[in-house]
Amino acid sequence: MSGQEIEKLIKIIAKLPALGTRSARRIVLYLLKKKEGVLLPLIEALTGVAENIKTCEVCGNFDTLSPCSVCSSEKRDRSTVCVVQDVTDLWAMERVGFYRGQYHVLGGVLSALDGVSPEDLNIEKLLSRLAEGEITEVILALPATVDGQITVHYLVSRLKDTGVKITTLAQGIPVGAELDYMDEGTIQLAINSRKEM
Amino acid sequence: MSGQEIEKLIKIIAKLPALGTRSARRIVLYLLKKKEGVLLPLIEALTGVAENIKTCEVCGNFDTLSPCSVCSSEKRDRSTVCVVQDVTDLWAMERVGFYRGQYHVLGGVLSALDGVSPEDLNIEKLLSRLAEGEITEVILALPATVDGQITVHYLVSRLKDTGVKITTLAQGIPVGAELDYMDEGTIQLAINSRKEM
Repeated sequence: MSGQEIEKLIKIIAKLPALGTRSARRIVLYLLKKKEGVLLPLIEALTGVAENIKTCEVCGNFDTLSPCSVCSSEKRDRSTVCVVQDVTDLWAMERVGFYRGQYHVLGGVLSALDGVSPEDLNIEKLLSRLAEGEITEVILALPATVDGQITVHYLVSRLKDTGVKITTLAQGIPVGAELDYMDEGTIQLAINSRKEM
Repeated sequence: MSGQEIEKLIKIIAKLPALGTRSARRIVLYLLKKKEGVLLPLIEALTGVAENIKTCEVCGNFDTLSPCSVCSSEKRDRSTVCVVQDVTDLWAMERVGFYRGQYHVLGGVLSALDGVSPEDLNIEKLLSRLAEGEITEVILALPATVDGQITVHYLVSRLKDTGVKITTLAQGIPVGAELDYMDEGTIQLAINSRKEM
């Protein structure tokens, strides 16, 4: 018997994304073996996040403050807003550190299969932010999937009357990629969107 | 910015077995989205384990008690001890529920590559358990790897003077397996160890 408490913990961990029962067992065993070094710091970090992290009421980011540090920063451009699918995409953009504007987290993309309709996404809030008049450009940084592109088309149709400039991320061959390994759709798209040097 | 506290949590989770930075980010985002449903129960379960789980002083199992529920159970056979590599193997045996004897967790196997020598394993404790005289059979349930089998040979050489019966798990074709998919070593071993019907 591995104890009721251990079983309960394994069950919770097994339900986390990318994990299953087998990896949950390995993780719990690792935590039990490294109680001082890993388990206690993990509990402390989780408790810190649970107590202090809020959803930003403006953009949907997670931060200790609401409005978040991006929304409230004096140094960031308030005329551009980048629409992303999820907070992880916002984090990815921030890791690059190149973009200096605002964000808007949509909370997903439209999907007939998963039953995600426009009401399920954070679209009304985006429209009300645009209505304030400070934003002049909306960058749609949504995934290059069918659902992502359907969402782009839907958002373009909703936003075109606001008069703001709407852009999307460039698509093509990623940096460092070999043509041999690219799918045909990407190669075709890269040829169609070729640039003169 | 995703916040110092979130970054710290991602770093700890990324170091857990079977995880990396990317899956840690996904997990943290999932926890942030399901605070009441997952994050708080996870903290509670981790705290419960951290506060209550001990290493059994007799066999090395993890349990709320020491000696553990297996070692202290009146219903279990005290004449047989099953030597396993790690607590996960003990859990695997207990899930089957067929074995009714005692356990001894070795804490690893001998490995020249990883620098694991006999002193690093829980062998002396096993010898002192045998010296008490109650145990008549030792089942070596160690992995069917080179290191596992080297450890079996080493343990046999250490235990042969104690006079107890030493057995190992049967090796051969696993239940439900197709011959076509088995490696040659296993097939050869299964032929050599064939049984008369």
